[in-house]
Amino acid sequence: MTSANFRRLEKDYPWIANPLIASAPMLNIATAKLAVAVSSARGIGFIAGGYDLSGLEQQLIEAQDLVHEANFHGSHLQHSLSEPPILPVGVGFLNWGASLEIALPLIQKYRPCAVWLFAPKTGADDLLPWVQVMRSKVPYHIKIWVQLCCLEDAVEYTEKLQPDVLVVQGNDAGGHGFARSASIVTLIPEVLDQLESRKSSLTLNVGKPFVVAAGGISDGRGLAAAMILGADGCAMGTRFLASPEAQIAKGYRNEILRASDGGVSTVRSTVYDKVRGIYGWPTKYDGRGLINRSYEDIMNQEVTEEENRRLYEVEKLKGDDGWGPQGRMTTYAGTGVGLIRDVMPAAQIVTKTRCDAMQNLQKQLHPAKL
Amino acid sequence: MTSANFRRLEKDYPWIANPLIASAPMLNIATAKLAVAVSSARGIGFIAGGYDLSGLEQQLIEAQDLVHEANFHGSHLQHSLSEPPILPVGVGFLNWGASLEIALPLIQKYRPCAVWLFAPKTGADDLLPWVQVMRSKVPYHIKIWVQLCCLEDAVEYTEKLQPDVLVVQGNDAGGHGFARSASIVTLIPEVLDQLESRKSSLTLNVGKPFVVAAGGISDGRGLAAAMILGADGCAMGTRFLASPEAQIAKGYRNEILRASDGGVSTVRSTVYDKVRGIYGWPTKYDGRGLINRSYEDIMNQEVTEEENRRLYEVEKLKGDDGWGPQGRMTTYAGTGVGLIRDVMPAAQIVTKTRCDAMQNLQKQLHPAKL
Repeated sequence: MTSANFRRLEKDYPWIANPLIASAPMLNIATAKLAVAVSSARGIGFIAGGYDLSGLEQQLIEAQDLVHEANFHGSHLQHSLSEPPILPVGVGFLNWGASLEIALPLIQKYRPCAVWLFAPKTGADDLLPWVQVMRSKVPYHIKIWVQLCCLEDAVEYTEKLQPDVLVVQGNDAGGHGFARSASIVTLIPEVLDQLESRKSSLTLNVGKPFVVAAGGISDGRGLAAAMILGADGCAMGTRFLASPEAQIAKGYRNEILRASDGGVSTVRSTVYDKVRGIYGWPTKYDGRGLINRSYEDIMNQEVTEEENRRLYEVEKLKGDDGWGPQGRMTTYAGTGVGLIRDVMPAAQIVTKTRCDAMQNLQKQLHPAKL
Repeated sequence: MTSANFRRLEKDYPWIANPLIASAPMLNIATAKLAVAVSSARGIGFIAGGYDLSGLEQQLIEAQDLVHEANFHGSHLQHSLSEPPILPVGVGFLNWGASLEIALPLIQKYRPCAVWLFAPKTGADDLLPWVQVMRSKVPYHIKIWVQLCCLEDAVEYTEKLQPDVLVVQGNDAGGHGFARSASIVTLIPEVLDQLESRKSSLTLNVGKPFVVAAGGISDGRGLAAAMILGADGCAMGTRFLASPEAQIAKGYRNEILRASDGGVSTVRSTVYDKVRGIYGWPTKYDGRGLINRSYEDIMNQEVTEEENRRLYEVEKLKGDDGWGPQGRMTTYAGTGVGLIRDVMPAAQIVTKTRCDAMQNLQKQLHPAKL
């Protein structure tokens, strides 16, 4: 069951279980609490560094404390080393805004196990300094994860950056990604075929890259399907919004539990950034969220952008009532939102998804006679 | 390996093999030749009836001839019956335009094994007369397939029509579907969960509905993933564009072989209908095709709709040169287009996809030690 790819990753992440499940570094939501809970269940949790990194050090301190407190699979972390142990969580950066100068000393000090790079202003060349610095100025083997939304970036990132992990994100994902994109159904096989055919020119060290699928995976069925498509593991975002560890307003979480028919009830748009005054995302990106008045009013040309933004600020004052189809608060969610019906501790989400995925694979080959 | 669902379907389609693979009734492209080739490889081929049905009788006659000629798994078709055998292909209708009065006598005369209903003007109520007539006026058990793109329709169609097969179409699909939709990654599990939870109220006869996944499936990996998600089989469209049996211009087929990075190189739009003067599709639908000048010029506001349509007519005169990114000919294709690298006989596509799907499922559980 365990692939060579997994065994290679396991050398540096001795606490992980197969198949790997990561929690996505969702801005403002993926805090130390969520990340450590995910890693404690033998996944890899990511703290959102975001684009300004203002809260990152506080989160890293908290993660350190939580790891110390927890009855962690942390025996794994310390058994071989006289050096300080690494922190078994990663940090995600939005590279169109994040500063390497701010990030580096924090990484050196708190030793997260991975960086997850996403959305550079132009392309791989913007990420290259990050990769070079991580590999030369960080005194342990920090693994480099890069997230991408299309084949062209997968090839370019692999050639220029030789990352440890490719996070291949499909169109179903909540939050930001390419406005125009395929789901993981076609993107993962196409990425793998292309990398395989270019293997010699890519000077890949060994085997195929470790591929983490993202976008629409909400349970063990999604993870198992991703593995069949060629992925080694998955990252989930929306599913963790319904965990007590996520830092999320009650109004937002209630929407995640309520919404169904995710392909119809969500939409990809830039409006959910604009109402919050966020204009830094490169033009290829937008974000998938539940449809609400911020979106409808702009689509129906009932408000100007400026008025829409003002109405958003007013809506904030309503607290949890600002969410919902008649509300205006940004409610990023993937098309898998309809599969999420209960709040569940993050660690349990990880364990259950992993277990269900394996059972789904077994069941296909040996179905119960109904 | 064989599910109860498959065994139920097999009673009426004795030539099929598990997992079921169907060819989609692609307008102008899915002729008798393609449909019979698919059924001859133990799948189910569909002839496109479309919205005006003008060429349907000719195709049904041709299908009849081809089935007679072929060394078909047709022994299955005749062994038990004194009645005339059924035709082992189905017919697809675009129900916003198709006439039941025209369709019925053709079905009674040529006895296709299935009708595939899609895109009624409003909803299930438009399809109800079709279903009632098929069940009362057709003197054999013709199976009713309905295609849908969202959870709401899946529930409504199941409740009101009790179809034999649900074709659950995800956003990756080429050609027509919902402009706003999820991929099969989330849509299939959500449909199955919802139908399961409503089972009693739906008065489903037995078990779960037979679900055929569509949208992005181009090879055995896609089919295996669909099965893991809960589907019983798949329908493929784009993959069959690169078969000699498809009725397709060389310029179009060359684009299917050339194009890659399908999430980026294709787009969902209504422009590809408008340039051809087709205005009948209900408003929720658009079509996914390779990006070309028809799309770019409208997006960049360089032409009016009228001018765009005129330019399309001029482009037609160029023959095969009218296709490509700089061309204007409509080139419907799914995001899986980049997985299609060779022309392959339709029967071989079916056999290989089925075989690869099974191998992919096996491999997950018993991977080679790389």
